[in-house]
Amino acid sequence: MATGKAEIVCTGSELLAGKLNLYAPLFHERLAPLGFSLVREQSSGDELGAIADCIKGALKRARLVLVVGGLGPTFDDLTRQAAAAALGRKLVYSRPCARILEINYKLKPLPPGFKNQCLLLDGAKPLENSNGTAFGQVITRGGKMLVLLPGPRKEWEPMFPNFLNAEISGFFGFSPITQVKLRLAGLWETRAEELLSPVMRRAKGASCTILAGPGTVDFILSGEDERGLITKAAEACRKILGAKVYGEGGATLAGAAGEKLKARGATLAAAESCTGGLAARLITDIPGSSAWFLGGAVAYSDAAKIKFLGVRAATIKRYGAVSGECAREMAAGAKRALKSDYAFSVTGIAGPDGGTPEKPVGLVYFGLAGPGGVKVFRRRLRGTRPFIRACAANLILDELRKVIK
Amino acid sequence: MATGKAEIVCTGSELLAGKLNLYAPLFHERLAPLGFSLVREQSSGDELGAIADCIKGALKRARLVLVVGGLGPTFDDLTRQAAAAALGRKLVYSRPCARILEINYKLKPLPPGFKNQCLLLDGAKPLENSNGTAFGQVITRGGKMLVLLPGPRKEWEPMFPNFLNAEISGFFGFSPITQVKLRLAGLWETRAEELLSPVMRRAKGASCTILAGPGTVDFILSGEDERGLITKAAEACRKILGAKVYGEGGATLAGAAGEKLKARGATLAAAESCTGGLAARLITDIPGSSAWFLGGAVAYSDAAKIKFLGVRAATIKRYGAVSGECAREMAAGAKRALKSDYAFSVTGIAGPDGGTPEKPVGLVYFGLAGPGGVKVFRRRLRGTRPFIRACAANLILDELRKVIK
Repeated sequence: MATGKAEIVCTGSELLAGKLNLYAPLFHERLAPLGFSLVREQSSGDELGAIADCIKGALKRARLVLVVGGLGPTFDDLTRQAAAAALGRKLVYSRPCARILEINYKLKPLPPGFKNQCLLLDGAKPLENSNGTAFGQVITRGGKMLVLLPGPRKEWEPMFPNFLNAEISGFFGFSPITQVKLRLAGLWETRAEELLSPVMRRAKGASCTILAGPGTVDFILSGEDERGLITKAAEACRKILGAKVYGEGGATLAGAAGEKLKARGATLAAAESCTGGLAARLITDIPGSSAWFLGGAVAYSDAAKIKFLGVRAATIKRYGAVSGECAREMAAGAKRALKSDYAFSVTGIAGPDGGTPEKPVGLVYFGLAGPGGVKVFRRRLRGTRPFIRACAANLILDELRKVIK
Repeated sequence: MATGKAEIVCTGSELLAGKLNLYAPLFHERLAPLGFSLVREQSSGDELGAIADCIKGALKRARLVLVVGGLGPTFDDLTRQAAAAALGRKLVYSRPCARILEINYKLKPLPPGFKNQCLLLDGAKPLENSNGTAFGQVITRGGKMLVLLPGPRKEWEPMFPNFLNAEISGFFGFSPITQVKLRLAGLWETRAEELLSPVMRRAKGASCTILAGPGTVDFILSGEDERGLITKAAEACRKILGAKVYGEGGATLAGAAGEKLKARGATLAAAESCTGGLAARLITDIPGSSAWFLGGAVAYSDAAKIKFLGVRAATIKRYGAVSGECAREMAAGAKRALKSDYAFSVTGIAGPDGGTPEKPVGLVYFGLAGPGGVKVFRRRLRGTRPFIRACAANLILDELRKVIK
């Protein structure tokens, strides 16, 4: 069975003036099950000629083109006009669309801006918007499909299950692209590539992507799975990687640790110095984490280490706050204070200042207290302050997940 | 004086397969001072023809084109070849580049992948990379400039101050686009628009962008400032907004609070329940924050509130953990425990579960302890769990910044 190429065009001057464009990953996710891979993304300002040019180019290359944004009622909403110019079609006033707006918004007669929103490309099918006044539009020509979508995510997202999934698969009938995302920790990108390259070489026809995070790696396998290509390749990868896989799809390290704790009815406490609340934040990002996470201390100063965690002043004086001894007392102290089953600690030098020849920036000590006692280890991380902090938080969450029996 | 149009081309199949592209805002920021506005961004997979097509199109429209990524040593690094195809130029082996790699990496002879990285577009100037082995390249033709940059931010970013700012302004000599970014808190986007619309209407020729964050708003004014257009408009905005402006440019709420604390030699402690470490993380993101931030408690459970912050069990029993009374004792307790000058507390229901008719999801109580006692207030926030948490953290940091005299 066939799969197809899709492109998206994102409109909005703000996307070129400081606002982050979050849409490519979201559309990738929605298009894969419809048999489309995203092959290009373009962001354009709110300019009629530029948007039309993006649409024209995309329609030359891809069979499915989605344009997002610029369907609102204001002067800088030009996508309808741009699409009309790109296709050489007229815009026609849709009486049925006007009726829907009149009824839903109790407006009769419609104000001018609303009238604008009833303009459809000649021959287009409107898609009703359950969270706004801008209709989506679908138009097909010569085996290709152009889709216009309103900009806000909450407006276009429901259009997929409501209309678009059926429209797209009805028109193209492609087989879905299966995607498996293995989430790994405790190895670097290069090592992941080394380990996985035999599978990648064998699994011809599968597309493989390696994404490096701070102390984590995502490995994404995707393609048609008709003959079990993706399923088998994924299984081979899982075997090779073993415990390095902390989850799949949308899994998180904190979530993986949390699942294990919850299953055992065990609880966790945290003692963070250089990560300064980051690990706790990753944990409490998870809805329901209060069932197993009791809390902890952001022990940024010596005073906080002593007061909240019962670290001995003598330990800090003798070994320093960045030491295995301090990490040990921090983890043990957090466990004791909150009577938790497990506790972890992180203390290190995140930089950019504060390093010395003996204790350079990136040196981090970790403690892990559990039923069997306290384990202490250290790592030398290299990178910027945010990278070192993120790595350190992921590292201890990964160790925690592995240590819970 | 003139300004110019720039485009960026981001390469990497991962950008179309789940990885967020963070680069448009970063390049926008770097190009504006050089007199360039970003008019289009394209993301392409690692495919020679597609990258060449993006480059060709961009060079037709814009005077400055930057291509990011695809300069590494592996098989899917094709940007050099794509640029050669787009320009119809050869790639030539650069002996000086090879020498630099041999010396910096103590490799002689160079392994094959490294040799690839010594290929320059015929006529291009190489840009040395202080954090990697991929050289940047600059080539000019017919009044236009094409720049190839390595993908990782830490590799391309230093190339601007080191080489590119001089290359670009030397070649084009455009007047800088002045940009003023006012960072606001304590109001919503719609209110910011209302307040600022008179200035926006008057400042013709200035481009205005409003970006909404969780409890924050950025207002960006940009344009040529030859007749003081931007300077004057920015001044008018500052006057209208008053204390709602917490900073400008790259300022952060935590940083704004920290500056005030540092100037007064005062210290801070934190007591977080529903934000679960997020506020502490925002604070400790700041290098040098240990000078004024002593730490705090992630008091996620009742036990942590009682043990670390001395909240009375009776208070929790009588009023609940999500209450003004609990917020008061949390803030007071954090201040007392760490002997800080200021302390804040956050306790609320971040959702999606845990809400009741009396205490719905989004209800958050805040405490702020300072030299004059403890102030308590509450807000009803609406949105998803991450949004409520981010809003709550920003809200308390904003109040903190305002309360420090």
